[in-house]
Amino acid sequence: MGKSKESFALHGTVVYCKSAKEMVTFEDGYVVCVDGISEGVFEKIPEEYKDLPLIETNGKLIIPGFVDLHIHAPQYQNRGNGMDMELLPWLETYTFPEESKYKDLSYTEKAYRMFVDELRSGATTRACVFATAHKDATLRLMEMFEESGLITYVGKVNMDRNVPDYYVETTEGSLSATREWLEEQKAKKFDHTFPIITPRFTPSCTRELMEGLAKLSKEYQAPVQSHLSENLSEIEWVKELEPDTSCYADSYVKAGIMNPDIPCIMAHCVWSDEHETEILKKNNVFVAHSPESNINLCSGVAPIKKYLEAGMNVGLASDVSGGSTTSMFAALRNAIYASKLRNRLFDGDIKPLTFTEAFYIATKGGGAFFGKAGSFEKGYSFDALILDDKTIHTAREDITVVERIERFMYLGDDRHIAGKYAAGIKII
Amino acid sequence: MGKSKESFALHGTVVYCKSAKEMVTFEDGYVVCVDGISEGVFEKIPEEYKDLPLIETNGKLIIPGFVDLHIHAPQYQNRGNGMDMELLPWLETYTFPEESKYKDLSYTEKAYRMFVDELRSGATTRACVFATAHKDATLRLMEMFEESGLITYVGKVNMDRNVPDYYVETTEGSLSATREWLEEQKAKKFDHTFPIITPRFTPSCTRELMEGLAKLSKEYQAPVQSHLSENLSEIEWVKELEPDTSCYADSYVKAGIMNPDIPCIMAHCVWSDEHETEILKKNNVFVAHSPESNINLCSGVAPIKKYLEAGMNVGLASDVSGGSTTSMFAALRNAIYASKLRNRLFDGDIKPLTFTEAFYIATKGGGAFFGKAGSFEKGYSFDALILDDKTIHTAREDITVVERIERFMYLGDDRHIAGKYAAGIKII
Repeated sequence: MGKSKESFALHGTVVYCKSAKEMVTFEDGYVVCVDGISEGVFEKIPEEYKDLPLIETNGKLIIPGFVDLHIHAPQYQNRGNGMDMELLPWLETYTFPEESKYKDLSYTEKAYRMFVDELRSGATTRACVFATAHKDATLRLMEMFEESGLITYVGKVNMDRNVPDYYVETTEGSLSATREWLEEQKAKKFDHTFPIITPRFTPSCTRELMEGLAKLSKEYQAPVQSHLSENLSEIEWVKELEPDTSCYADSYVKAGIMNPDIPCIMAHCVWSDEHETEILKKNNVFVAHSPESNINLCSGVAPIKKYLEAGMNVGLASDVSGGSTTSMFAALRNAIYASKLRNRLFDGDIKPLTFTEAFYIATKGGGAFFGKAGSFEKGYSFDALILDDKTIHTAREDITVVERIERFMYLGDDRHIAGKYAAGIKII
Repeated sequence: MGKSKESFALHGTVVYCKSAKEMVTFEDGYVVCVDGISEGVFEKIPEEYKDLPLIETNGKLIIPGFVDLHIHAPQYQNRGNGMDMELLPWLETYTFPEESKYKDLSYTEKAYRMFVDELRSGATTRACVFATAHKDATLRLMEMFEESGLITYVGKVNMDRNVPDYYVETTEGSLSATREWLEEQKAKKFDHTFPIITPRFTPSCTRELMEGLAKLSKEYQAPVQSHLSENLSEIEWVKELEPDTSCYADSYVKAGIMNPDIPCIMAHCVWSDEHETEILKKNNVFVAHSPESNINLCSGVAPIKKYLEAGMNVGLASDVSGGSTTSMFAALRNAIYASKLRNRLFDGDIKPLTFTEAFYIATKGGGAFFGKAGSFEKGYSFDALILDDKTIHTAREDITVVERIERFMYLGDDRHIAGKYAAGIKII
């Protein structure tokens, strides 16, 4: 299925993060890709790579591709709408009616085509994606992603309570459809499109359903994604629904679906207290930080700086359509905006995210969920964006590399993407 | 000097605000312009306007032009940079060195050309602009704006203390240069470019300078713009510098430059308490709300909903380069973002701005500083944007007019602007 993973070198202005504290820049650098894997960045092209094809970018910015750790494919059609509502009414009014349309495969075809085309032409190289509860539509989405060259985890959504009749599943029906979906996608032998077990969130999943999903996760060696501690009214609801739990995360732990052996993404974690944070840490959970969504739905701001300083796994996410845009440039600046207002208005002890920290979570932070991705260090999968910033005008002649890349995150968009690679495969 | 103000009708999907609570939409409407003035919006073209040229937009969105009530022209070259700093260090490190370059008229020519070209091709039709302390550069900026067709107030900045030696003025020098500038711009008989008295802010203006500027404002019938209560460290500093004042605003009142007879814009007003808010109200001050700037510089969020409910004048602003972008679409969504986090994290009593309120302050709210502008009601100056949203894809077939315009503010940018008029003159 997959296209060939090429070997070549890119010449330009290279920027990447080694850690949340360390940004590496080469004003004039060569980044080398051999069979889809980065060999590192060099000031002069080393002898051993002299025969590789050299792609000259004429000083354009070259950065790792962005990882969108949480996005809802079907909600793409609603982006930028219903933003005067909070989470629970927004789900009822906008999200469930739209998602239910994907039982219709002709709607699916049209709508997912738009979504995949936009992700393909944007700054995202890897994504973890919620589909809908529909097995066939989810398979179709996986086929489209496989063709696109993007590297994705895609999940059929599960939910057996507190969802409108027109969209809810039975416990048994949800589990059997998930098993069928796992089998059918396996038969397709996708090269860079993977299944991920996707209970929507505790309010819409019974313990029995989640226990069944935990077993499927183990059986098929599939990771897990869900939502956690996003909005205050949602958290109150979980307390009522799950009286035997010590916190929201404990509802996943008790069902056996959050444990150290299953790679797991939890979107949001806005209101996780010390106790819940310890649970996340102990279980190596990836926090998918969704700043615009958490603002739009009046949820709040997750303490990302604290999570980073505790050594936790954090990635960045667009969370369309809680977030309005698939643009990871926007997600990155929104992460900085949100952290500044959290610091100024809520908790001065947690400093704002620096530009480097935000860049890190958007690349290597989320990339870690895929293994070695999101950096140009030797041995990392070769995901890259070539960014043409010459139309972002300035009369200044002393602008530095760090200033160019910082400015790009505020002012750049998809029209400035001049090239894109995922795992060494050219996408744009 | 000015181009002729035309008469015509536009046919499309028309949206505007009558008030902060009332958005008016015509899915299929005609907005009529006679000699640069709106005659209103109609479902069918009235008999008396049947002979006007009819411009068919094929269902594009037609909205009033946006008013940017606070923007620094010279800082454009720094946009998106230095965003890890707060106000006072950012001024010293980024702003003053850049502004000081405008003593060089060849730099001025190049840099202001970029700035004016971007505003011209964007969504702004009217703006209130800070230049630098340099008289000649400020005059050149006014000439460029006059040519552009945009409608602007432009101010030569004044400052005689707490500014680096390489950029500070003497009190006498500042006043005499301002008088010369006022005379010279008067001689040019600009048609839609007006002078505005511009003390930078209290920390950089002695009482004597501000008193002199108050007299010039009266003598030349020029309005005033400055900054107020933006950042906590700035407010502390004003307390030390002006011990005889009851609050920051009182430093302007005591100098005679804030009074009910002088139209006055104060940017920010983030931390104005009840006492200061009363002063703003009594003096009919326009609050220039600069949400992105107030986030970037960790200032906070102004209580705009409260100001609106108190019947105060509020407009929206990009505040480049405290704000990174001249895009008023971005300013509008940032105003909503900021109000949501203020509500969730700081003061639950003040509800978030609705989409309609944000649209209102971006158009008619700020437009009021110019007289009748920012609306399509009969008698308003005809400023309009034609927005082509067909490339903002959705598979939904039931999208409403309000959803289209809301979505546009999150996802639209300058590439979607298909036409633009200011006071009846076609700009794009």
